[in-house]
Amino acid sequence: MTQDKAVLLHGARDLRAGRVPRGEAGPGQVRVAVRGVGLCGSDLHYFADGRNGTNVVRAPTVLGHEGFGVITETGPGVPGDRLGERVAIEPAAPCLRCAACLSGRYNVCPNHTCLGSPPTHGLLRESALVPAQFAHPLPDSVPDEVASLIEPLAVATWALDRGAPVAGRRVLVTGAGPIGLLVLQAARAHGAAEVVVTDLSPERLRAAAALGATTGEGPFDVAFDCSGAPPAIRSAASALAPGGTLVLVGVPGEPEPAFPLQLVQRYEFDIRGCFRYGPGAFATAIAWAADGRVDLAALVTSRFSLDETAAALEAALTDRSQLKVVIDL
Amino acid sequence: MTQDKAVLLHGARDLRAGRVPRGEAGPGQVRVAVRGVGLCGSDLHYFADGRNGTNVVRAPTVLGHEGFGVITETGPGVPGDRLGERVAIEPAAPCLRCAACLSGRYNVCPNHTCLGSPPTHGLLRESALVPAQFAHPLPDSVPDEVASLIEPLAVATWALDRGAPVAGRRVLVTGAGPIGLLVLQAARAHGAAEVVVTDLSPERLRAAAALGATTGEGPFDVAFDCSGAPPAIRSAASALAPGGTLVLVGVPGEPEPAFPLQLVQRYEFDIRGCFRYGPGAFATAIAWAADGRVDLAALVTSRFSLDETAAALEAALTDRSQLKVVIDL
Amino acid sequence: MTQDKAVLLHGARDLRAGRVPRGEAGPGQVRVAVRGVGLCGSDLHYFADGRNGTNVVRAPTVLGHEGFGVITETGPGVPGDRLGERVAIEPAAPCLRCAACLSGRYNVCPNHTCLGSPPTHGLLRESALVPAQFAHPLPDSVPDEVASLIEPLAVATWALDRGAPVAGRRVLVTGAGPIGLLVLQAARAHGAAEVVVTDLSPERLRAAAALGATTGEGPFDVAFDCSGAPPAIRSAASALAPGGTLVLVGVPGEPEPAFPLQLVQRYEFDIRGCFRYGPGAFATAIAWAADGRVDLAALVTSRFSLDETAAALEAALTDRSQLKVVIDL
Amino acid sequence: MTQDKAVLLHGARDLRAGRVPRGEAGPGQVRVAVRGVGLCGSDLHYFADGRNGTNVVRAPTVLGHEGFGVITETGPGVPGDRLGERVAIEPAAPCLRCAACLSGRYNVCPNHTCLGSPPTHGLLRESALVPAQFAHPLPDSVPDEVASLIEPLAVATWALDRGAPVAGRRVLVTGAGPIGLLVLQAARAHGAAEVVVTDLSPERLRAAAALGATTGEGPFDVAFDCSGAPPAIRSAASALAPGGTLVLVGVPGEPEPAFPLQLVQRYEFDIRGCFRYGPGAFATAIAWAADGRVDLAALVTSRFSLDETAAALEAALTDRSQLKVVIDL
Repeated sequence: MTQDKAVLLHGARDLRAGRVPRGEAGPGQVRVAVRGVGLCGSDLHYFADGRNGTNVVRAPTVLGHEGFGVITETGPGVPGDRLGERVAIEPAAPCLRCAACLSGRYNVCPNHTCLGSPPTHGLLRESALVPAQFAHPLPDSVPDEVASLIEPLAVATWALDRGAPVAGRRVLVTGAGPIGLLVLQAARAHGAAEVVVTDLSPERLRAAAALGATTGEGPFDVAFDCSGAPPAIRSAASALAPGGTLVLVGVPGEPEPAFPLQLVQRYEFDIRGCFRYGPGAFATAIAWAADGRVDLAALVTSRFSLDETAAALEAALTDRSQLKVVIDL
Repeated sequence: MTQDKAVLLHGARDLRAGRVPRGEAGPGQVRVAVRGVGLCGSDLHYFADGRNGTNVVRAPTVLGHEGFGVITETGPGVPGDRLGERVAIEPAAPCLRCAACLSGRYNVCPNHTCLGSPPTHGLLRESALVPAQFAHPLPDSVPDEVASLIEPLAVATWALDRGAPVAGRRVLVTGAGPIGLLVLQAARAHGAAEVVVTDLSPERLRAAAALGATTGEGPFDVAFDCSGAPPAIRSAASALAPGGTLVLVGVPGEPEPAFPLQLVQRYEFDIRGCFRYGPGAFATAIAWAADGRVDLAALVTSRFSLDETAAALEAALTDRSQLKVVIDL
Repeated sequence: MTQDKAVLLHGARDLRAGRVPRGEAGPGQVRVAVRGVGLCGSDLHYFADGRNGTNVVRAPTVLGHEGFGVITETGPGVPGDRLGERVAIEPAAPCLRCAACLSGRYNVCPNHTCLGSPPTHGLLRESALVPAQFAHPLPDSVPDEVASLIEPLAVATWALDRGAPVAGRRVLVTGAGPIGLLVLQAARAHGAAEVVVTDLSPERLRAAAALGATTGEGPFDVAFDCSGAPPAIRSAASALAPGGTLVLVGVPGEPEPAFPLQLVQRYEFDIRGCFRYGPGAFATAIAWAADGRVDLAALVTSRFSLDETAAALEAALTDRSQLKVVIDL
Repeated sequence: MTQDKAVLLHGARDLRAGRVPRGEAGPGQVRVAVRGVGLCGSDLHYFADGRNGTNVVRAPTVLGHEGFGVITETGPGVPGDRLGERVAIEPAAPCLRCAACLSGRYNVCPNHTCLGSPPTHGLLRESALVPAQFAHPLPDSVPDEVASLIEPLAVATWALDRGAPVAGRRVLVTGAGPIGLLVLQAARAHGAAEVVVTDLSPERLRAAAALGATTGEGPFDVAFDCSGAPPAIRSAASALAPGGTLVLVGVPGEPEPAFPLQLVQRYEFDIRGCFRYGPGAFATAIAWAADGRVDLAALVTSRFSLDETAAALEAALTDRSQLKVVIDL
């Protein structure tokens, strides 16, 4: 069976070159030759600890779920003229049959798999099979250099959908990592009157300011936690105006942190979870990247080749000045 | 100045007969001669402790905010033909000028006052002045015996608005006190496929079953916490289906209890606070009480006269078999 | 190849017994042995005219899309324990890949097919293949006699989803045919304060009154046109309160009738189309039929065998006192 | 009684200088010394015909409802520190007591009055009394030259609220007059992926292109009719994608034009009326004008003094190249 070159994680900090089966494009699938992959916080967790939350690496697995590439094979039922298309990859594959999928919430499908979530291989390999509708065409105005950032931008556009409406509202973003900086930009692209960003790192606050963040006090109409830090989540909730909304974008750092439920009840806050991206998020992300409303290049702080993946992961793990590290294939 | 007979709380368990100024119906106001008042958990807190949460009784105050009566005076700008109208009283008076009020969320108006929330006198007196639009006409089919329960039913109908949509959904109600039993009925009146109710008291579970509750396991699409008990709130959140909604109806018993935020984020739950009642809640409550879709009589477990208010409060405080205690004036 | 007994429409009023290929349950499909089929207005159009709107019968076609039956075969990927399950059939098969499907609006999927919409064969045959997720389990409390009415009830529950919120609102239904009578009941099950029904037929108005309709004047918060008659649609729009909603359930009798757009603009009405049923509609319909909140038996006015289908269609076409005519297999 | 200099319309094309009573700031009111007023289509109708739709000028009336100025007097209950504040004027005064007002839809209040809608005097006078909450503070970054355009921009931001969500969607705007050009910009500020604008005038299409409009075919997810022309409204509806939304911003030119209701029903379109502006619209407009996301200066094509109002109205009426004509006081 033909195999693809890949980088596999065998356990904590044990990354090795290897090969994985290529398979064949099934009905409704396309093969995407991977051209670039961004590294994400969950990749770092798997690399550092051999696990991410409750999901443990039990067999060698290819990481990577932020990627783009070119369609090189079309399965039955997929128009042949998609061959050669440059596409951003939406990595989760929902079942499209359960109640969640049928009602437009496929991102919480209990039956889904996701590229790069063990035991499902990810994108740090030569090619991957993807449902055709989740290979999103990229216009020429999105250059290769930033195309792998469409995925985290889709996280941000979806967060805005979850926090809607924000047009004309005062917005708070807690956490100025890559996702926070994209949520900041997405909030502005959604018409927020003002976006205040908080973070412990002065460097990241400068990056936020350069992308349009302002400074100011609450109350805020909508807050997005992009830190996962329980104290930041609590402070975001406490800074809401009556009737305000808090969207949890980052994975909370504890399963059951203390949370100001009396305020939530008394002032009719809405607390909304946000997981990956749902319908339309990639299309929105691509449209905004294409016309420059969102600056993706500002987030890319270093690039590596596939062979240098271990070094790239170490850099992303240890160097706090890194925002987004990209692997070029 | 003319005065009304009243019952005033001077401090913890210090209730005395007295008199309060009648005032005069101002522009847009009506005077309502009070005919019945239900006792609520917050009345019990004030009576038992001289405080409710952070609100402390600092001067003698008339309690009571669940009431009905008859219009006996109309202020300037109010049609004179409202004289003699029997009305349910919506007790909170929002400013109707702030951003919250203008956008249809007057129940979280930061400038509001509420009858029976110290230092504002409540309804355990001969008459009260109310904005005309918050004196809601009662049809004959709502008998005096249950008319003071329109207010808690409005709490329940508003909770359903906050938890919408519930039609065809599986619903969980945690806590089978008066509000829980009304939320149960309101959920059924809203088209819920099934309503499961939990409580520690077998007696209250029997009352719930008699009003249509079923027993069963999760996951649930929508949950309403009517207990305020942090363990019940956590179990309600944990029992939600992906994309599910939890409405906090009861006041949480701690300011910042532990709460399963990782689940909220991962499964895109919506956690929604619910405070009193917003636009339309009283009209809905009256319509449902009028045609018998909601059984209010089942909740009234004892009745007292105004002179017996202290005894009524003691009974409500100490006898767990009491659901709703009503004072007839 | 094995074939199923069927009744095929060859052209206007040309119905003949025949046979159609059974096929085999593919991945994710089940075979349902059909037990009952209700006749619908579109069936009558095809029978009377050989066409329904722009869709023309060009080859012999099996009609029927309101049906139920028993699962007798499960395709790959479907749990075998579904064999023997009694199910209501959701007849449309959306592609589940386009933007409409992915966003929870599969009922407007441009690629869908529908049982009984030529050239796709319908349910007036021994068995049909259906995606497993569109074969909805029926509890014992929904008797065979009314099980084929789950489909039109799903039309009504979906109409209510489109017209939401209706709880506590005054509702108008124009047209008291089977769909109007089901929308009336669904509106009450959704918590409408009051439902006024209009129709030209005194007999149908009596049926509506028996099912809970009241009489009264506007304005109405929400209106459902179930007549398709342009004058009724216009009168429904004109009877709305400021900010009111009109749902078009019936197929309008003309492509471009005169419509009061100045009122729509001036009073911020919402006019919402409604087509078949979307996510959750069958589950809701089954829940309501199961516990008796909706009376389906009241709508069945006559029953025929499969061999008598032509007579059944003639009866439904010519006898205005018929509400729902059912074919038992 | 002190009087203000004003320009009064006595009948069709009969505009005269005059004086109107100043009155006194009542409870909750402020007096605004008017500094600039934009002319709107309805002003032109009153001037040309002595009427606008069914509203007829029966007594000399001051026109003008698009204005800004400086607070020179505060009524009881208004903080004195608002004196000297530069404000945009929201000209409609809803009752704030009816069901529409209480539920956040004060713009369809049946009891409202509006500055410049006869018989209520408008802003072409030295000062006007306004409810304090409808005098919206202007930051310095909104220069006097464009401050009277906040009102039409609020129309546009409200239209976007009615058409939400538009982020990432393809949008159509029919009609490239001042409102169309503002809706175009508001749609981009709301995150629309692309905005296509149609108009019969090549000059106006050039203005639209300069403000970011693209050209292209349907289908569109959301359309905004800003023309009022029935053929344009019909073409907008026909260009919608399944599940699409059409917002009627312009006043339709006929009360009951032909409208494609079969398409609306079949593809579940939403048709939404849009009238003036509701909660938050002015705040959003001011935020967007303040940071330059919306270009108001591009719309101002000529300026006149109060004494030249008749000439200004003639210019606006007869010169199709005029977009927005402003009167400086």
